[in-house]
Amino acid sequence: MSDLGAPAAMEGQGAYNRNARVQAHAVRGALALWDAAAGAVPLPAGAGTVTLADFGAATGQNSLEPMGRAVAILRQRLGPSVPLSVVHVDVPGNDFTTLFETLRTHPQSYLARDPLTFALAAGRSFFGPVLPPDSLTLGWSSWAVHWLSRAPCPVPDHILAELSADAAVRAAFAEQAAQDWRHFLESRAAELQAGGRLVVMTIASQGEGPAYVPVLTAIRDGLEDLVAAGTLARAEAEAMVVPTVTRNATAYAAPFCGADAVAGLRLLEFTLVAGEDPIWPEYEARGDAFAWAAQWVGFLRAAVFPTLALRLAEDTPARRRGFFDQLEQRAIARLARSPAPMAVHFAHMVIAKDGGGAP
Amino acid sequence: MSDLGAPAAMEGQGAYNRNARVQAHAVRGALALWDAAAGAVPLPAGAGTVTLADFGAATGQNSLEPMGRAVAILRQRLGPSVPLSVVHVDVPGNDFTTLFETLRTHPQSYLARDPLTFALAAGRSFFGPVLPPDSLTLGWSSWAVHWLSRAPCPVPDHILAELSADAAVRAAFAEQAAQDWRHFLESRAAELQAGGRLVVMTIASQGEGPAYVPVLTAIRDGLEDLVAAGTLARAEAEAMVVPTVTRNATAYAAPFCGADAVAGLRLLEFTLVAGEDPIWPEYEARGDAFAWAAQWVGFLRAAVFPTLALRLAEDTPARRRGFFDQLEQRAIARLARSPAPMAVHFAHMVIAKDGGGAP
Repeated sequence: MSDLGAPAAMEGQGAYNRNARVQAHAVRGALALWDAAAGAVPLPAGAGTVTLADFGAATGQNSLEPMGRAVAILRQRLGPSVPLSVVHVDVPGNDFTTLFETLRTHPQSYLARDPLTFALAAGRSFFGPVLPPDSLTLGWSSWAVHWLSRAPCPVPDHILAELSADAAVRAAFAEQAAQDWRHFLESRAAELQAGGRLVVMTIASQGEGPAYVPVLTAIRDGLEDLVAAGTLARAEAEAMVVPTVTRNATAYAAPFCGADAVAGLRLLEFTLVAGEDPIWPEYEARGDAFAWAAQWVGFLRAAVFPTLALRLAEDTPARRRGFFDQLEQRAIARLARSPAPMAVHFAHMVIAKDGGGAP
Repeated sequence: MSDLGAPAAMEGQGAYNRNARVQAHAVRGALALWDAAAGAVPLPAGAGTVTLADFGAATGQNSLEPMGRAVAILRQRLGPSVPLSVVHVDVPGNDFTTLFETLRTHPQSYLARDPLTFALAAGRSFFGPVLPPDSLTLGWSSWAVHWLSRAPCPVPDHILAELSADAAVRAAFAEQAAQDWRHFLESRAAELQAGGRLVVMTIASQGEGPAYVPVLTAIRDGLEDLVAAGTLARAEAEAMVVPTVTRNATAYAAPFCGADAVAGLRLLEFTLVAGEDPIWPEYEARGDAFAWAAQWVGFLRAAVFPTLALRLAEDTPARRRGFFDQLEQRAIARLARSPAPMAVHFAHMVIAKDGGGAP
């Protein structure tokens, strides 16, 4: 948390797990690509351990299905005696205790289903090296790479740089997003074995602007309400920023093209998936705008409120809890005034390292 | 924390690091054995990653020196291009955030000193499998294996089973200690590569009873004071137990001897080291009994108060903090009444897995 401008870990102690349902539906499309990658990736020679990794693992709930599926497919291919290691990667501030408890106790954990699996964690930014060179057979990353390594500059007029009126702010964040995506890929290029594969699922734009605009704007307006109510200082509100960028297809493809392409990687597959609001049908059936808004704000509470709270000048547990609860209430009230389906688009990518006899 | 009777993680957020100075001096003797093991252990063939592990890593402060020394010795032997992974093992409730932050920011971290090192964590009990079979070159464990996997029964009349007046209680804990040590060794026997080595530093008894009796008794008496003051219920105090056992040389050697010895392991070296009270010279020089007692109780606060606090019937952050502070004050007052050097003895062991051409 010492890097000003870097995102905080997700809200811990299970809050992120509980609110992960909004995310789960969007991962489904990527799982078919993931299954295919696990079936096709060249297996390392010899009887050594085969290593998988999840880049941006949070508290583990969203790791269970992809890791479990890959373990099952690789187990079929490898036979019963080859060990499988799964490395869960996230920032040092991540709630690794909930991660390890989830892996230990959840009935769908690969640890429960396959006796020759081993869970590890790496508490290090995935925008740099995390694993030994040439050690990774298969990597997964969902809902993670839209987070930047840092906010390159303040964004006083919004919590999302892409919605700032200041073109210099927007440009600085776009440049940071380009650098971070390149650093992510360069690091994975070093870590993957010859022919190793990486499947990435993340939010994306079709050119119509960033994702989550209504709910992020409701949170921004909620911060204004807290300033007006005197429970948040104006300077605190202006310092708050969510360091994410919704890249488009061109931005995702850039490091694979041209003379300065990242060496050794190929983009085997890129799919832009038009998402639908997963909570909207429930609203249409029941007409409860508050319930719809509460689910969206609850989702963003777990994912982004901890990052906003880094800018609280006086950050005691009691004030932080009060800030979370009050901001959630204000943002729900704002969002519930004008319900509309909140479409979010996704990019699904399959990336391969050269070599290994892969197609 | 869900296993009643299992020890809690050490006190987090740096408290354990700050109080680790009492422990550091006792490790020094083991480091010479460790250096020799790093110099003698057979290196795995091929260019794959070499793996070290620290079993009972806590928040990492005590890992820095042994891991840094082994990394330097192995780097000399391996040359610059072989990656080294270091796996820090502790229970799921451990403060892995402080561990990863310590590794990331400390100037003596191996990550800062050797660019081809990789830090991982495993949040799993070391009384069972933690790492893939045949994957571990060199293992270290300090100040850890005297903690049992669980308290096999309540100990109403003390916080330490070995000081209970009930022979059945003492026997149950001795049996648990024997089982746990065997399970620890069986798990490491599977994980070590042929010829791989394990260096263990732990507290030990020369037959005169458990370690830390004066300070543990002062804490027990402090609990009585809190019950008398009405801030702790009698039932809470009676449920509190520190699930450690101070084994003697016979107990440590048992799994290496006879027909049911753990297969594949040899005890290359066993040294019982008579320890001295590291804080006593300061007391002799300054005559400040309170300062002497405060350092000893402070050390045990970080190591054992979290385990005692598991038995608080109503466990809010405020009550836990109050319990820690009040118990520390009471125990210091008790211990300061009759200062006497607190000698603690240690066992240093070098254990080798068969094979690999090792001597």
